[in-house]
Amino acid sequence: MGNEQMSEKLEAPIIIVNFKTYSEATGKRAVDLAKKAEKVNRETGVHIGVAPQFADLAAVTEAVDIPVFAQHVDPIKPGSYTGYVLAESVREAGAIGTLINHSERQLKLSDIDQVIRIMRENCMLSLVCANNPSISAAVASLKPDMIAIEPPELIGTGIPVSKAQPEVITGTIRLVREVNEKATILCGAGISNGEDVAAALKLGTQGVLVASSIVKAKDPYMIMTEFAEATKGRR
Amino acid sequence: MGNEQMSEKLEAPIIIVNFKTYSEATGKRAVDLAKKAEKVNRETGVHIGVAPQFADLAAVTEAVDIPVFAQHVDPIKPGSYTGYVLAESVREAGAIGTLINHSERQLKLSDIDQVIRIMRENCMLSLVCANNPSISAAVASLKPDMIAIEPPELIGTGIPVSKAQPEVITGTIRLVREVNEKATILCGAGISNGEDVAAALKLGTQGVLVASSIVKAKDPYMIMTEFAEATKGRR
Amino acid sequence: MGNEQMSEKLEAPIIIVNFKTYSEATGKRAVDLAKKAEKVNRETGVHIGVAPQFADLAAVTEAVDIPVFAQHVDPIKPGSYTGYVLAESVREAGAIGTLINHSERQLKLSDIDQVIRIMRENCMLSLVCANNPSISAAVASLKPDMIAIEPPELIGTGIPVSKAQPEVITGTIRLVREVNEKATILCGAGISNGEDVAAALKLGTQGVLVASSIVKAKDPYMIMTEFAEATKGRR
Amino acid sequence: MGNEQMSEKLEAPIIIVNFKTYSEATGKRAVDLAKKAEKVNRETGVHIGVAPQFADLAAVTEAVDIPVFAQHVDPIKPGSYTGYVLAESVREAGAIGTLINHSERQLKLSDIDQVIRIMRENCMLSLVCANNPSISAAVASLKPDMIAIEPPELIGTGIPVSKAQPEVITGTIRLVREVNEKATILCGAGISNGEDVAAALKLGTQGVLVASSIVKAKDPYMIMTEFAEATKGRR
Repeated sequence: MGNEQMSEKLEAPIIIVNFKTYSEATGKRAVDLAKKAEKVNRETGVHIGVAPQFADLAAVTEAVDIPVFAQHVDPIKPGSYTGYVLAESVREAGAIGTLINHSERQLKLSDIDQVIRIMRENCMLSLVCANNPSISAAVASLKPDMIAIEPPELIGTGIPVSKAQPEVITGTIRLVREVNEKATILCGAGISNGEDVAAALKLGTQGVLVASSIVKAKDPYMIMTEFAEATKGRR
Repeated sequence: MGNEQMSEKLEAPIIIVNFKTYSEATGKRAVDLAKKAEKVNRETGVHIGVAPQFADLAAVTEAVDIPVFAQHVDPIKPGSYTGYVLAESVREAGAIGTLINHSERQLKLSDIDQVIRIMRENCMLSLVCANNPSISAAVASLKPDMIAIEPPELIGTGIPVSKAQPEVITGTIRLVREVNEKATILCGAGISNGEDVAAALKLGTQGVLVASSIVKAKDPYMIMTEFAEATKGRR
Repeated sequence: MGNEQMSEKLEAPIIIVNFKTYSEATGKRAVDLAKKAEKVNRETGVHIGVAPQFADLAAVTEAVDIPVFAQHVDPIKPGSYTGYVLAESVREAGAIGTLINHSERQLKLSDIDQVIRIMRENCMLSLVCANNPSISAAVASLKPDMIAIEPPELIGTGIPVSKAQPEVITGTIRLVREVNEKATILCGAGISNGEDVAAALKLGTQGVLVASSIVKAKDPYMIMTEFAEATKGRR
Repeated sequence: MGNEQMSEKLEAPIIIVNFKTYSEATGKRAVDLAKKAEKVNRETGVHIGVAPQFADLAAVTEAVDIPVFAQHVDPIKPGSYTGYVLAESVREAGAIGTLINHSERQLKLSDIDQVIRIMRENCMLSLVCANNPSISAAVASLKPDMIAIEPPELIGTGIPVSKAQPEVITGTIRLVREVNEKATILCGAGISNGEDVAAALKLGTQGVLVASSIVKAKDPYMIMTEFAEATKGRR
């Protein structure tokens, strides 16, 4: 499936599952998990994307027909960069975009800017993570396609979105919108169950970026179904 | 093919081709180039390995039956390391080892040590690059399976191995052997043609690590054949 | 002199001289150069600040009565951070602020944010460098005290400010002002002589951040005087 | 005092106190602590060195007549390296050497090698930290003047040297001596009291590298005196 068609598949609300480097989502198990995501997508109609490890990208994109993201891309063009991640290589492996600046893989400011540009040149989507309100606003100025906001109140304290002060989310959204009207805003923290997903959307985000609550679940298919159904309340 | 069988295939002399992030060796072109390497291996009997980008590993290992290396692996265990390269993921993609500390992707000393240990735990091969004699000796103390020595005289000045002072290579080999009798020693710089390959082996290395002289060649198949034939002079 | 008084001394227009790690501005020569800057300040009334190396900060601040900046501060609090630069240590050495994210010492986005916060907590000034318009806007969202804009057109091509398209500077200033009305904006590239200084101020910046044009000059005192006089045209 | 004379003052046994970025050893308190170290040196005759932060180096070296080390130096020559630490600058500030690769400030292997060379060119001492036996041997190949071994058994578990298996220390010393007969070997972990100091020396090290046990002590003068006296048992 071409990148253009994939992008069309990314209308909100969207759930993106970050596979991290979890054993439960490495190699064959990455493919298995992606197939479950695809099944939930087919059954619920809700858009679900996955972000497997680099070496698993090709097998995953071959096995499923849902949007696949890389977890990181380096700010490089083709050349002598042994051991780095080239946009063209993940695109050829079938990814339609990449996470950028995940809190576990933070980048220099100028590199975030550079990777966003490279994604654009390659007709790929950029999803930049930002772990506080002022950083979210800074990221928004760089005009990525998507921003995952991770309010520190939701990370540090373990408070779920559904129990948090609404301003924690709405304030960040407002800051982002002041400089960027178009970027899709995802909630990237505090999501453990369907109630949290519904709360995140109700507060104004267009989706969620999740990891362990799905990947480490006893029954990821069931949890993804719960998350997907929860997005429907607002439609 | 299992890793054990692959390792057996790695008897010296060996030629390893680093695909870097060259356009000429990305995506489908990585598979094409690997197939040419396999053809040369079949025709000459000389062991040829390839080191494609992460996202190309699975397609390459599926297409060919020669040893495939990753270009880098991070010093991590399965867990929350979004955007990093897990040994288990490149192993599941079919790689039998990895380059470590390439001059374009240098690591902290303790990370080199850690990646070598992780490779060993995963029954994979560690090939550490070292860009001067004292660094080569330091690396040898860490007991990797293979060391690619890159004498600065051969990098900085563009002098090919076949024209260099023999001591440039033999001195480094002696330093390595003082602390490590077993590691396979490759020559990682100064190799442009068959004459250089023959000279590197004559001086005591067990193979070569090459990149642009193959990948950027008009006819990589022809150059790989030349390199492979050149290794036979010493047998 | 207390930090509060120093800050008052920083009214625009201001010239800040980055000593980098130039031999000409290391150790005793850093003190000598700072004394010349102070002399120019006394004679012209124009505010001139200097940014010497860490180990030279104390000697410079003891010798002169002009604003002194560190070249970098790490995003750390007191604790176990051997080899890192603590805000409190450079403050005690007499610095009133620090450069942040200089193009030669770029930081992760979240670290820029963190260092700005730490500076504020220590009642010190943050001067963040930004090397293109969108990065300048991103930096502005983080609310630093000062921003040094470095339009790539002025770096890449060697075009001086006085000969550049005015939009190169004014466009960046406008982007910054959309999200930050207060920060002092310096021109951080393309300044070689008094004409460039005058042009930078005329286009709307409040000063300049310079390095080699002063430090490497045959007669730094003369060039600093030229720069200082050039700022007066607009008053 | 010139560097040459300082080096002579560094005969074993030696105690080196790393000030880290502790509040208790920043600014004026760095000078106070160094003066106490000097007092203990005068009273006991035992060599005590200190490693304050960069910005405190000049004030400390002016105040005391004992060996002063930087905590880190960057692998650079004079030039355009804003925010980095130049060997020449810490030397002019009076330091006679530097810690390298402290576990809190680890370097790339080639950078360790480069900083050791730069120290040698500046007639300064290199003290490289190594946090396991194979890394200690690797470091020894690079020919630094001093090596601080930090057996992981002593870090991870909190076991003091005096209670540890003797082989933990002696095994590492043997590995180091196989490739380097001259380097001064310090014990860089597991030292909390005089008994530990005596044990470290008895096992074959020539001194200790300590931090919190001195800097965070209620009475650093008393503890340094205890450490100094403990070194005398073996003479």
